[in-house]
Amino acid sequence: MDGTPDQAGSTLQADRDHHVVIVGGGFGGLAVAQELGGATGIRVTLVDRRNYHLFQPLLYQVATAVLSPGEIARPIRSLVRPHANVTVLQAEVSGLDLGARRVRLSGSEHDLTFNTLVLATGATHSYFGHPEWARFAPGLKTLDDARRIRSDVLSAFERAEATSDPLARERLLTFAVVGGGPTGVELAGAIAGLARQALAGEFRRIDPAGAKVLLIEAGPRILGAFPEDLSDYAARALTRIGVTVRVGQPVDSITERGLSVAGEDIPAATVIWGAGVQASPVGSWLGVETDGAGHVAVDSRLAVPGLPGIYVLGDAAAAKENGKPLPGLAQVAQQQGIYLGRALRRQLRDGIEPPPFQFRNRGNLAVIGRNEAVAQWDSLHLKGFPAWVVWSIAHVYLLLGFQNRLFVSLRWLWAYITKRQGSRIIPEGLSREGGR
Amino acid sequence: MDGTPDQAGSTLQADRDHHVVIVGGGFGGLAVAQELGGATGIRVTLVDRRNYHLFQPLLYQVATAVLSPGEIARPIRSLVRPHANVTVLQAEVSGLDLGARRVRLSGSEHDLTFNTLVLATGATHSYFGHPEWARFAPGLKTLDDARRIRSDVLSAFERAEATSDPLARERLLTFAVVGGGPTGVELAGAIAGLARQALAGEFRRIDPAGAKVLLIEAGPRILGAFPEDLSDYAARALTRIGVTVRVGQPVDSITERGLSVAGEDIPAATVIWGAGVQASPVGSWLGVETDGAGHVAVDSRLAVPGLPGIYVLGDAAAAKENGKPLPGLAQVAQQQGIYLGRALRRQLRDGIEPPPFQFRNRGNLAVIGRNEAVAQWDSLHLKGFPAWVVWSIAHVYLLLGFQNRLFVSLRWLWAYITKRQGSRIIPEGLSREGGR
Repeated sequence: MDGTPDQAGSTLQADRDHHVVIVGGGFGGLAVAQELGGATGIRVTLVDRRNYHLFQPLLYQVATAVLSPGEIARPIRSLVRPHANVTVLQAEVSGLDLGARRVRLSGSEHDLTFNTLVLATGATHSYFGHPEWARFAPGLKTLDDARRIRSDVLSAFERAEATSDPLARERLLTFAVVGGGPTGVELAGAIAGLARQALAGEFRRIDPAGAKVLLIEAGPRILGAFPEDLSDYAARALTRIGVTVRVGQPVDSITERGLSVAGEDIPAATVIWGAGVQASPVGSWLGVETDGAGHVAVDSRLAVPGLPGIYVLGDAAAAKENGKPLPGLAQVAQQQGIYLGRALRRQLRDGIEPPPFQFRNRGNLAVIGRNEAVAQWDSLHLKGFPAWVVWSIAHVYLLLGFQNRLFVSLRWLWAYITKRQGSRIIPEGLSREGGR
Repeated sequence: MDGTPDQAGSTLQADRDHHVVIVGGGFGGLAVAQELGGATGIRVTLVDRRNYHLFQPLLYQVATAVLSPGEIARPIRSLVRPHANVTVLQAEVSGLDLGARRVRLSGSEHDLTFNTLVLATGATHSYFGHPEWARFAPGLKTLDDARRIRSDVLSAFERAEATSDPLARERLLTFAVVGGGPTGVELAGAIAGLARQALAGEFRRIDPAGAKVLLIEAGPRILGAFPEDLSDYAARALTRIGVTVRVGQPVDSITERGLSVAGEDIPAATVIWGAGVQASPVGSWLGVETDGAGHVAVDSRLAVPGLPGIYVLGDAAAAKENGKPLPGLAQVAQQQGIYLGRALRRQLRDGIEPPPFQFRNRGNLAVIGRNEAVAQWDSLHLKGFPAWVVWSIAHVYLLLGFQNRLFVSLRWLWAYITKRQGSRIIPEGLSREGGR
């Protein structure tokens, strides 16, 4: 296929190279672009509606004022800068024209014509049929989400200090996290740490350590993807640092006043959603069936059956291995991206069909708090301080770019020694006036 | 006056201590609170609508993606944490009741009753009778302003890369800074640096180094507060790094398309306002006359004539020394705050009227770019690299809090060595869709 001319003339740039368009600059899409960097006969356009790649596994630390947004985000441009054959476009995709092999960009006079299309658009929150909850219980997928949660949490303490009504104060100092997966556990643990350590001594009328932090899980245990001994350990560790863990309790409703759980009304000014995930609208773009969570089925080479030259990976795809679906983790998306980049490169050069994708599980990690985490590789289970050390090293190592690695390490070291937190700004645009 | 009881009962907290209410947690208000920390017989309430103290002199570095917002902001609470007699309230003041000696807080059920009131509310932009320009030409006073300018500047490059219309591209790559004071000079120099160094090699269709950066000053020279030789040096240095300096050219109008300067239409997607300043509405709160820029006249002890126990300082005040108005600088506000805190403490303890405030000029500094600055103390004039070194040391030293000092130093060192910039996020809420 090398040297196949572009099928259409009205593109931004048309030449004789094979054009790979990648939608999404997360772990999956970025890896594809980097692997295709410098390949002769291939040009790449990476489209993302944001100008930055986000290190999502640390998003909860921005939401809880440990890190600044800039420390877990890097411009996509600077990450693919060495590769002259990769063009980055900050634009929003509005849909596809599969017949003409074009990607439509909203607000742009031009479409992008592709030979090969890679869709790596990730996932967003799902409120299980209750979109009205979104207003009161933000999820945590983007930097804007993290900023909003940080602002909500910090503002709740500020407003509790300012009020003299004991009921209002109690509601302001109640923080409910819905969903006992890794994100929920990390958020609940970090909010408890903020209340007990970082804010200690800074208020005159309230005691931040008296804040109630609830972790609410509908299933029988938290960290359901982990072995049972680690779930139990995590629940005990959370309880120790002041989180009330409630399992087997589905949420009935979420309103401006708080939430209702298993028939009980809980007044809470801050409710955070860490429960459901819904894939981006790739299925409707492609006109193919999806599973209940919006994932597009792909074959063992990440191709969409029946649509040649179109691939889906990461959280947007329902990839399976040995009949079991792969989890929605950064490591899956990244490995798929590296695989697909190399496979496309070889296929376009030699015309050889690549071997199927194989996931290599790098282990499951969830952090609970200071010196507390759980970790699992196959039969190896770690908990407490050793797991926390592994978690810290792994995340510093995985952070893209030496600068961020250095700064985040120092920020953590600082927070660890002083028990203070570095990034406690309430942005004005987000601070709440009265109301909730 | 020590031990005078509070005049009203319906305050949040009423006791027998003398109550000093400070409005504004900038350089002036924060210094008053810190000086009054631990004083027996005095309790202090510091009110600010934001939860953080902002190091405004480095705001232009957030606007130009060198630093993150969190690096120049610290929670006011943590800055007064050791002082148990200081309460911090995040609230917006809506007005004063001078008869009852109360401060009204918007959205709160309670007023604050004071014995002594310190107003340190700073200043905002003034568009010289053209408020409609504000929409198209943001000023730089708050973190939100800095985020917006950063977003506008970075988005302009992104959109220039995405368009194929040469006229649109030229307009997107034209950046106009209005006002040749230190802020305007620093912004213009930093945008030129961003275009020529930090973004080099990251675009495929445009050359960021080809961006036009204009600095427009109505007066006869830039940096009018500096001696003429330093103004001339700064203009030459700016020209060398790619800024077009236009002096003696007042702005006629600013619209969505760009601006009109001395009869010439300049299409420009990004216009930044660094020209006028207007004091906060303290004058109307107090019902006293102000000068044209809204400053309240104070006597040599920073007291408002005719209103006992009410003080105004910093950018909100028109303080004079030897008949000459003091400049609107952080060092003036900070020295006034330290003076007033000590004076109040002594006056309330011993009943002795303090000596008048005396400003000690610590020098005038303006940075132009990498290795380029101007500095002046009386007859000592520095320019180029020596002035830049002095500027860097002074600003790291002045940054509040060891953590920020360390991080900002490292960030600068990194940016200096690599010529890259660390914080290039375009927040989603601020990114512009089409239009301008």
